[in-house]
This record gives sequence, structure tokens and C-alpha cells, in this order.
Amino acid sequence: MNETIKTILDHRSIRSFQEKELAEDQIKLIVESAQAASTSSFVQAYTIIGVKDPIKKAELAKLAGNQAYVAKNGHFLVFCLDLHRIQLAAAMEGVEEVAMLASLRSTELYTVGVVDASLAAQNASIAAESMGLGICYIGGLRNELDQVSALLKTPEYVVPLFGLCIGYVDYRTDKKLRLPIPAIYHEEEYLSDQNMKMELEKYNKDIAAYYKQRTGGKREDRWTQMMAKQLLNAKRLYLKSYLARKKLTLE
Amino acid sequence: MNETIKTILDHRSIRSFQEKELAEDQIKLIVESAQAASTSSFVQAYTIIGVKDPIKKAELAKLAGNQAYVAKNGHFLVFCLDLHRIQLAAAMEGVEEVAMLASLRSTELYTVGVVDASLAAQNASIAAESMGLGICYIGGLRNELDQVSALLKTPEYVVPLFGLCIGYVDYRTDKKLRLPIPAIYHEEEYLSDQNMKMELEKYNKDIAAYYKQRTGGKREDRWTQMMAKQLLNAKRLYLKSYLARKKLTLE
Repeated sequence: MNETIKTILDHRSIRSFQEKELAEDQIKLIVESAQAASTSSFVQAYTIIGVKDPIKKAELAKLAGNQAYVAKNGHFLVFCLDLHRIQLAAAMEGVEEVAMLASLRSTELYTVGVVDASLAAQNASIAAESMGLGICYIGGLRNELDQVSALLKTPEYVVPLFGLCIGYVDYRTDKKLRLPIPAIYHEEEYLSDQNMKMELEKYNKDIAAYYKQRTGGKREDRWTQMMAKQLLNAKRLYLKSYLARKKLTLE
Repeated sequence: MNETIKTILDHRSIRSFQEKELAEDQIKLIVESAQAASTSSFVQAYTIIGVKDPIKKAELAKLAGNQAYVAKNGHFLVFCLDLHRIQLAAAMEGVEEVAMLASLRSTELYTVGVVDASLAAQNASIAAESMGLGICYIGGLRNELDQVSALLKTPEYVVPLFGLCIGYVDYRTDKKLRLPIPAIYHEEEYLSDQNMKMELEKYNKDIAAYYKQRTGGKREDRWTQMMAKQLLNAKRLYLKSYLARKKLTLE
């Protein structure tokens, strides 16, 4: 197994960082790594906003649901879906906005932007981890997107999708047990419900044992139970209207 | 610069592979690498379908817009957004589908699934490239999703998002020049339009020179021109209705 795969397999989310800032050349290498990812039809439909200002970081930490590590880390990146840049590019060629609306508002281009931003973010993560740093994705950034957008001055057609904390590791958590391979990797066609259920039963046992061991017997959650709770508690239902305010009506 | 970052920065999309299949242990390592990526709230909202059957691969190559390398490679993966598995998990806990609809139909959960699938895919890509293999993402898989879904027997709440060709490199293309860093990486807040335009003018010159050199003077495209063309030609507008057929109405 090579060093890169070792790095990838050794991933865990870090939620406790030392108070030590990343150097500029580290940040540059991480951003260049992000940019090296594939991008659909060369659109590069994402922007990364790096935040160092402690006041802004504290504000983002609060908006993301009081996650202290959003403020305390080596560097904080916000990955945004960005269709504004290509709209500006087309405007530079004399194209009027009305002529691009079908594209800009499409579910397709929204999907492309989310994919592009995510591929770039994962490259940034692996690059950081290969340098011995820890990372944590912050989906909580989508809790209050109107306020996050105002803080980062993102224009129409831009959506902050998630944050990425990077930094020197203070406390290293355990790796989390993933789904059994047959549940996530199917051959030739999608797995039958019957076989999927068998895999999930197996996973439930492993996850319960994992939590039991990790919490000294206090928790014994099943994965299916965790998923049921999440699905019953619909989150961020305002996202559709937020996107519409950014002109992304997902037609 | 470490080996992992070298691998990341050396990425290019490979569109010509040798006729040599990946070994099972290579595939397993690539899938495990995919699984090691972060996932929002542990939902693991994606499934990977590996396709070896030459007839199926030829069919997918045709559906993706006659891209020969979808059929001819070392292995072909289809990354799907998957909310079916968590729906099944919740059903195993006695939750009725109607009680989960607000979650399942939400733009939020669609976004989570696209992010999860993409993070996993990029891990798979980097793992494969670290093994000396080449990769190419196939967004063209979204051209004919009804037919792709039928071929892969994906149920409701599952969306094949893109393919990933992996294989032994036959012909190695050039690396494509990315946007200047200041266009994609902004500090503290989103870049002003004035500064963005300056960066895009600079990029246009570099891209034109790149194509001129690569095509022996035949092409001299500007990036802004390429983006204008793309935005004027709205693609895959049926995606919204396809998602609705899969019960993903993006509320």
C-alpha cells in the first residue's frame, strides 16, 4: 500500500486543533491541489474563500451551530458553488444575462457546481492530510446561509456549500466504521433490497459494538436508528428559497 | 513536496486506456479509499456501481455520447447519489415513507448526496492515480438518465451522477491550465467584479496561448468565450423532471 492510500485510509475528522496558523506556502499548495481536481467541461464552477479574521471566524463558528473548531484551527476555507464567475465571463463576451438564464437556473448546472466544489475540496483535504494536518468538513455552514453570504459578500449565483477546517491536530479521534463494502459497492446493477437489508443488519451490529466500546457501554446505537432519526427531522428546508434568492431556481 | 501532493498536482484526464482489466484487489483498495472520505452526518448517501460486462459498458458508452473510453478501460464505476439506502434503513426502524418525505425530497439532502458521492469519487480517483493508473470523469452519463437507471436497475431516490473510467494509461494528455489562483481563492470575502475581470483577461491570454501551442496554431480559444458558448447552450434541462420521477422533487 503506497503512502497516498495510507493517508486516504487513515482519515478521521479532527475537531480539536492547536492554535497555530498555517504558513502561506502551505495554503498555496492546498489551493493548488484543490484546483488540480477534474472539473466538468472546464467550468471550474467553485470558489474558495479563506478566512483568517478572528472576528469573522467566531461569527462563522456561531452561525454553523456553535462549533468552536470553526474558529480555532490553522486555517478556515469556505467552498462555494460559483456560477457568478462564468456569468461574468460570458458577459465579457457580450452575452446578456437573459440569454444565459436557462443554463444558470438549471438543476444540471447546480449539480455541476456542487460536484466541482466537492472534488476540489477533497483534493484540498487529502493534500492537507498528506502534510500531517487534520481536517473537518463543516456542513453546518448551510444552517444560516443568508448571514454567511452577507459576511463573505458572495454575489448572486454563488452558494457557500460547506466549510473546511484545517490545522495542526490537537486531539485525534477514532476512525469511524463505514458501511460494509457490499452495501456501498454493487456489481453490474443496484443491490436488491433483501441483500441490502442483510448488509445493514450486519452493519448495525458492528456500529453498536463500536459505540459501546467507544463510550464505555453508554451508547449502543444502530446505524438504521441514526438514519431514521435524521430522516424524521428534516433539516434546512429553507435552502430552496435561499437558492432562489441567489437566482438559482433549479429548473 | 510529498508524493501525495505530486500525484494530485500531476492529474490529467485520461481518455485512452490499455485493454487490461484492474485486479480485484486494486478495485477493493479503490472502493475502500472512496469510503474513507468524509460524509455528512454519517449518512454515506452514495452508492458505487462497478460495471465489467462489455455489453453494458458499450451501452453506457453510447448513452454518454459515444465516448469510446467508457467501454475501453480497466474498470468503470458509476457514482450514484443514494437516498434509497437510508430510506430502507429508516423503514427497518418502522418509519413510514410518508414521515420521511420532507427530508427525502429536500434540496438539502440532494445537495448532501451530491457532495458525499463527489468526495468519495475524488478519493477513488486519487487512490487510482497513486497506483499509476489514469482516470476520467464521465458527466455525459447524465445525458440519458432514464436509460442509465434502467440499465443499472437503480431504484427511486437514487441518481447516477457521473461515471469514472479507471485504467492503465495508453495515451497521456497535457495538464489543463487552471484559473489563476486569485480568481478561485479569495481572502476574507468574495472578489470584486473588477478584479475578477482582470484575472479572467489574464487567464484568457494564457489559455489562448495554451491552445495555440497545443493545436499548432489552429485554435486560440479564450476561456470567457468557451464559457459564453456553454451558457448559451443550456444542457440536460430534463434533469429536474428525471429527479421528480425518482421522487426527488427538491423542495
